[in-house]
Amino acid sequence: MERGRPLGAARRAGPPDTQQGMRRRNLSRVMHAVAAHGPLSRAAVAARIGLTRAAVSTLVDELTRAGLLEELGPERPGRVGRPGSALAVSAQGPAGVGAEVGVDHLAVCVVDLRGAVRARAGRLVDNRGRAPRPVLCDLMSLVRQVIAEAEQEGLRPAGLAIAVPGLVARDSHTVARAPNLGWRDTDIGALLPTGLPLVVDNEANFGALAELWLGTAPPADFLHVSAEIGIGAALVVDGRLLRGTRGFAGELGHVPVWPDGPKCPCGGRGCLEQYAGEEAVLRAAGLAPGTDRVGLLSTRAAEGDESVRGALREAGTALGIALTGAVNLLDPRAVILGGALSRLAPWLLPYLEAELGRRITGPGCTVAVSRLGPDGPLLGAAHAVIRSVLDDPVGVA
Amino acid sequence: MERGRPLGAARRAGPPDTQQGMRRRNLSRVMHAVAAHGPLSRAAVAARIGLTRAAVSTLVDELTRAGLLEELGPERPGRVGRPGSALAVSAQGPAGVGAEVGVDHLAVCVVDLRGAVRARAGRLVDNRGRAPRPVLCDLMSLVRQVIAEAEQEGLRPAGLAIAVPGLVARDSHTVARAPNLGWRDTDIGALLPTGLPLVVDNEANFGALAELWLGTAPPADFLHVSAEIGIGAALVVDGRLLRGTRGFAGELGHVPVWPDGPKCPCGGRGCLEQYAGEEAVLRAAGLAPGTDRVGLLSTRAAEGDESVRGALREAGTALGIALTGAVNLLDPRAVILGGALSRLAPWLLPYLEAELGRRITGPGCTVAVSRLGPDGPLLGAAHAVIRSVLDDPVGVA
Repeated sequence: MERGRPLGAARRAGPPDTQQGMRRRNLSRVMHAVAAHGPLSRAAVAARIGLTRAAVSTLVDELTRAGLLEELGPERPGRVGRPGSALAVSAQGPAGVGAEVGVDHLAVCVVDLRGAVRARAGRLVDNRGRAPRPVLCDLMSLVRQVIAEAEQEGLRPAGLAIAVPGLVARDSHTVARAPNLGWRDTDIGALLPTGLPLVVDNEANFGALAELWLGTAPPADFLHVSAEIGIGAALVVDGRLLRGTRGFAGELGHVPVWPDGPKCPCGGRGCLEQYAGEEAVLRAAGLAPGTDRVGLLSTRAAEGDESVRGALREAGTALGIALTGAVNLLDPRAVILGGALSRLAPWLLPYLEAELGRRITGPGCTVAVSRLGPDGPLLGAAHAVIRSVLDDPVGVA
Repeated sequence: MERGRPLGAARRAGPPDTQQGMRRRNLSRVMHAVAAHGPLSRAAVAARIGLTRAAVSTLVDELTRAGLLEELGPERPGRVGRPGSALAVSAQGPAGVGAEVGVDHLAVCVVDLRGAVRARAGRLVDNRGRAPRPVLCDLMSLVRQVIAEAEQEGLRPAGLAIAVPGLVARDSHTVARAPNLGWRDTDIGALLPTGLPLVVDNEANFGALAELWLGTAPPADFLHVSAEIGIGAALVVDGRLLRGTRGFAGELGHVPVWPDGPKCPCGGRGCLEQYAGEEAVLRAAGLAPGTDRVGLLSTRAAEGDESVRGALREAGTALGIALTGAVNLLDPRAVILGGALSRLAPWLLPYLEAELGRRITGPGCTVAVSRLGPDGPLLGAAHAVIRSVLDDPVGVA
């Protein structure tokens, strides 16, 4: 008689269900239902979330008092029964502040609970090699500017989320490595005391979340590829980001493509970034790095420049090989190209798709180009704050 | 003013919390606590799961009446206070039947709620090219045999879980492809009407679950690599299997390693299986395929056979390159080698780890060898049934 380890896992036990926990989750369900499908009457909310109308009324009263929901007045007459008042999430009240530290730009925006961008500011600046403190100081002055604008419209910032082009340690504000900025173990929380709840994450992660929350019918499982100078990816599984043990998942740029290929600063050889990163493509095309590098590449490619097209062909092929591995490992519904890549898609896609088609048997997966383009990470950051309000409205109210 | 898509997602709404749902979840919490940490008194269960002793007593009474928990009699005297009766999960009652269809063997076992293997049967048989029906007919006679044994000991099978060396369509009983058996779109549910609840899954998935449930302190995030004739992997993320959109995630064997390498039956070129699959290694070592192929390789390698060691060096290097990509994409805490691979680990690991060490910056991840070895998938299958009982005891009671 063999005997295994005792069954079950402590993790399963979790906290017990309590009345208080149920109430918080039901408040969140009401907020999510109205945010996603509103304006809705109380009866329609009740039908959507499967609670009684009386229970929903109590929850709605609490959310209205807290300024998170507002009444739009009676629904249009002519319907059967007593007219109900339509509910919408508040266009005042809590707002999300999103910020982006790019290699060559800074950007900030404020989004309200309805998803509208209510203020925005940005600045072109070469951040390569700049120390974190002055970069964050510049960012902070933009943040102050948009918050002032938003407050004039009756909004109140519920949090700040910052997208960075680097690896962010899980559940922390620390950028472990951002090679293209030259940052290492940079604790943004310590350098940026705003008084607001703070979230720091990789730009590809926020880009993927934006796709999930704002995209047109995004699948529940996809791989979001985002490239600028580096190449990052983010994996969404069952509608949630897969972050990895340390928060470093998605390093598509360092998947080996030709294992004996050129040395990569990461220590490896023949990594994807050596073929499909912005600088590698410029080098292969015989062009000098400058400003608006992607614009230069797409203009030249559109003009029929053979060396640029050849470099993009190599890049597309290398992307297709690296993505074959990723698709075989992860079986996503779709691969979505975002960021700078989306502007080069016309010249990359045919080669990328040819490799996938040749190497993957069965139905494979769709390749699509993000419609949010370079705005994805910034919008994803602002919406991350909004989602945290919808997920736990009483924590804010 | 830009305006995004309405916020929130319908998926969030989910079913509302109800008293009935709370009761079912709390019954499951009691079962998991006793299974993982028992024997436990009612007071100890209450402390572990954070409910009152009175609430736990009611739940325990229901589980005892259903034959899922049993009283072991009063705890030993000498403790402070009134002695409580210790509770354990029942050694009779529901049991899990696990089965494995291997390329060259069939195996079946019965596991009780305490995790003990109570009956076991197996048969060596070359299943390559055999039609599904006779293979499943052979399997079924083994299943009947172990169930008869188990019933004599007062156990009653709560379900049957079958591990197969192929891709199983998600939430189905259909083997989409099992190239090494020659099966395609094989609906095991239709061919095997047992009257028992049935689960069919890939052997690497069950191997990973066994590691998670029965391994020594398994991490919550790991990549489980399992090789026999093919090479499969399973990804565990936050303690859960990542299955992929269609259920096909984990195809490590078809990650490109040398993109211009030999043609692979999958349609690609230079896939990992072309360097590290059992047949590729035998071919590279100049050996003929036969029975106990892994045994032959490990014996020859131990004897110092240079051509075998060379073939295993190439295999280890290829594994290291493919795993570099996987680790960069997924950031797991550990890579665990299971199945036949575990027996060849002494000759594979140095080369595998050298590639990972050279190519991955930062702390990387641990590489470990499974202690369950070739038994992993079979045990994982039987325990999958046991877990379903612990997860929803009232569904069984």
